[in-house]
Amino acid sequence: MLTISTRGQAMPASPIRKLVPFAEAAKKKGITVYHLNIGQPDIETPKMVLDAVRQSNFKVLEYSHSAGNESYRKKLVQYYASVGINVNANQIIVTTGGSEAIAFGFMSCLDAGDEVIIPEPFYANYNGFAVAAGVKVVPVTSFIENGFALPPISEMEKKITPRTKAIVICNPNNPTGYLYSKEEMEQLKALIIKHNLYLFSDEAYREFCYEGHQTSAMHLTGVDDHVIIMDTISKRYSACGGRIGAFVTKNQQVLDAAMKFAQARLSPPGFAQIAGEAAVDLPADYFDTTKAEYKSRRDLIVSRLNQMEGVFCPNPGGAFYAMARLPIDDADRFCQWLLEEFSFEGQTVMLAPATGFYGTEGLGKQEVRLAYVLNSNDLAKAMDCLAVAIKVYPGRK
Amino acid sequence: MLTISTRGQAMPASPIRKLVPFAEAAKKKGITVYHLNIGQPDIETPKMVLDAVRQSNFKVLEYSHSAGNESYRKKLVQYYASVGINVNANQIIVTTGGSEAIAFGFMSCLDAGDEVIIPEPFYANYNGFAVAAGVKVVPVTSFIENGFALPPISEMEKKITPRTKAIVICNPNNPTGYLYSKEEMEQLKALIIKHNLYLFSDEAYREFCYEGHQTSAMHLTGVDDHVIIMDTISKRYSACGGRIGAFVTKNQQVLDAAMKFAQARLSPPGFAQIAGEAAVDLPADYFDTTKAEYKSRRDLIVSRLNQMEGVFCPNPGGAFYAMARLPIDDADRFCQWLLEEFSFEGQTVMLAPATGFYGTEGLGKQEVRLAYVLNSNDLAKAMDCLAVAIKVYPGRK
Repeated sequence: MLTISTRGQAMPASPIRKLVPFAEAAKKKGITVYHLNIGQPDIETPKMVLDAVRQSNFKVLEYSHSAGNESYRKKLVQYYASVGINVNANQIIVTTGGSEAIAFGFMSCLDAGDEVIIPEPFYANYNGFAVAAGVKVVPVTSFIENGFALPPISEMEKKITPRTKAIVICNPNNPTGYLYSKEEMEQLKALIIKHNLYLFSDEAYREFCYEGHQTSAMHLTGVDDHVIIMDTISKRYSACGGRIGAFVTKNQQVLDAAMKFAQARLSPPGFAQIAGEAAVDLPADYFDTTKAEYKSRRDLIVSRLNQMEGVFCPNPGGAFYAMARLPIDDADRFCQWLLEEFSFEGQTVMLAPATGFYGTEGLGKQEVRLAYVLNSNDLAKAMDCLAVAIKVYPGRK
Repeated sequence: MLTISTRGQAMPASPIRKLVPFAEAAKKKGITVYHLNIGQPDIETPKMVLDAVRQSNFKVLEYSHSAGNESYRKKLVQYYASVGINVNANQIIVTTGGSEAIAFGFMSCLDAGDEVIIPEPFYANYNGFAVAAGVKVVPVTSFIENGFALPPISEMEKKITPRTKAIVICNPNNPTGYLYSKEEMEQLKALIIKHNLYLFSDEAYREFCYEGHQTSAMHLTGVDDHVIIMDTISKRYSACGGRIGAFVTKNQQVLDAAMKFAQARLSPPGFAQIAGEAAVDLPADYFDTTKAEYKSRRDLIVSRLNQMEGVFCPNPGGAFYAMARLPIDDADRFCQWLLEEFSFEGQTVMLAPATGFYGTEGLGKQEVRLAYVLNSNDLAKAMDCLAVAIKVYPGRK
């Protein structure tokens, strides 16, 4: 028998994308679907960034250096300095999206059977890269009641075994929007020193903080060899399709190992490296404008959600996601019902059931993630739909 | 201790790129280095292909479908039909280079400890993807004396164990340039049926055949579920830096599994998908021109090499590589010596030692791979260098 590998079978289907066929069917019926299910920003990619690609004039689309173009890595050094992170160009490997940075981290630092501890709910694709690498994800639950703050260190410590090699955080967090405080980051620092663990820090949403500033894992002192940043231009510059990210660490052994994985796949995408390089030169107020837009959207949905009877939505400090607890029996069923059976004035809303973001079976059944990646008008209409939907949903609790 | 994973340690450094520091040092001394070491074509990327990207006018660089843009996959259906391969758009997953297609194949069909049989010498990065996937590469030696023809099926059969899941071929072959005959492909077909194996067929160089035509693995009848094509636009359109490839199979289970790996990394690069889509519309004579150029280069180097005393270079039927046996003690030492100690009229040549392409320790010590990716003038000068070099090399045998 020709067989599919065990890992091919174990590989999770994307929880964010599995409702897509239902959304397509709804659209075919003429229903407008507001997509709050996926972190695809509607914000335009800065023209200057796209123009850099469009005005390029090379003749041969060559392989770049496996670590990425040197000119781009040098620009990234400037960018990181501007956010208080001091690295040199040799401490950066340009990756094919943040995704590849995660894969490089898992592959370089963990063997099959090794464990990573991740506060849940967490970015669902960590599961995918873990399965690919044979790594076991050990979740530690965070709770909606306190806005998904870092779980107590004592709870994390209970999960540590001899196979534990790393902690993974996403800060500000996808899917919760939680922004880890300086104190929480210092607690993590003490933990990784005490147990000699890597800290993989996914900082895709670094600039999108609405209450205070981000404490990067690279702002922590004395843990240079422990910290690996997984980064991406996707959200920062609304450039998800470029597939450009970065793997950043001061640990030379880890860099050497990751570099071998980078060489095997030859080079990161060429065109989008040009885009990423241009993005570093965006005017200083670029993020102010974008951030103000996201903040006003956040304020709108958090306020609207909390006005709905039986709904609770903590105020997220960063990223462009909010998690809400709804008065429903089952988030997967509800999200599918929204697409299959519900509409309000010819419109409906697509959400991500939170179940896909938890590693612990059974959690998240009353929670959904909302990505506020639509303009305020559309967001308001989406909230109108949701307000009606939770009233008439047959599985209301 | 913070440790590097066993696979991170086992991961091979690129044998093609490891001589780069010596080349850089030579250039700093003012020596012209002719690069025949890497498959980076000098041929210009077709203007129409680059212009498609430069003239794009979208506002948001969005994620594409995880399988690639539907419009591109539909175009690829046309392309494949034009080379006698009948697939539909759902049987194609657009990948980040041919590299990712290889990774998807290994990950979807093989578990850690499973084995793939590969005729050696083979494309060195198969090793990298095998290490990443925990897959064991089992080489079967092919020989320069008969131009690296497919090893006898009986030899391949001897290597089959209960863990053998697949055969990997590259046709036309990198690094040997060998073009498998229809008869050889039929022999492989009988083998994969008899032992129920996958056939992973890397067809990156499909169009570059100088003696007859390529028999694609998808031209074989009755083995639809066995065959997976790993493809790429890199060499075909001189677009290596785009990082666009394709994973093509009619096996629905394999597609379903590979699709989950594709979803985890969200989407293939956006800009270069536009390039790939435009490339399908290149005029029919595009390959005639490119092929004629490569063929004249091949004729030049094969003839020049065989004129050198003690050198043997079989005439490769395809791709843009030639393997030559030189009268030397050690190919790695020789290639480094060419860069470190040799020059002729201020020039030298960079070659890839064949040792990196063999899975069996100790083979390939007198062989080098030459990529004929320079214009004929430069190639001729590179041959002048080599002719002198092998006369004066202290390790001449």
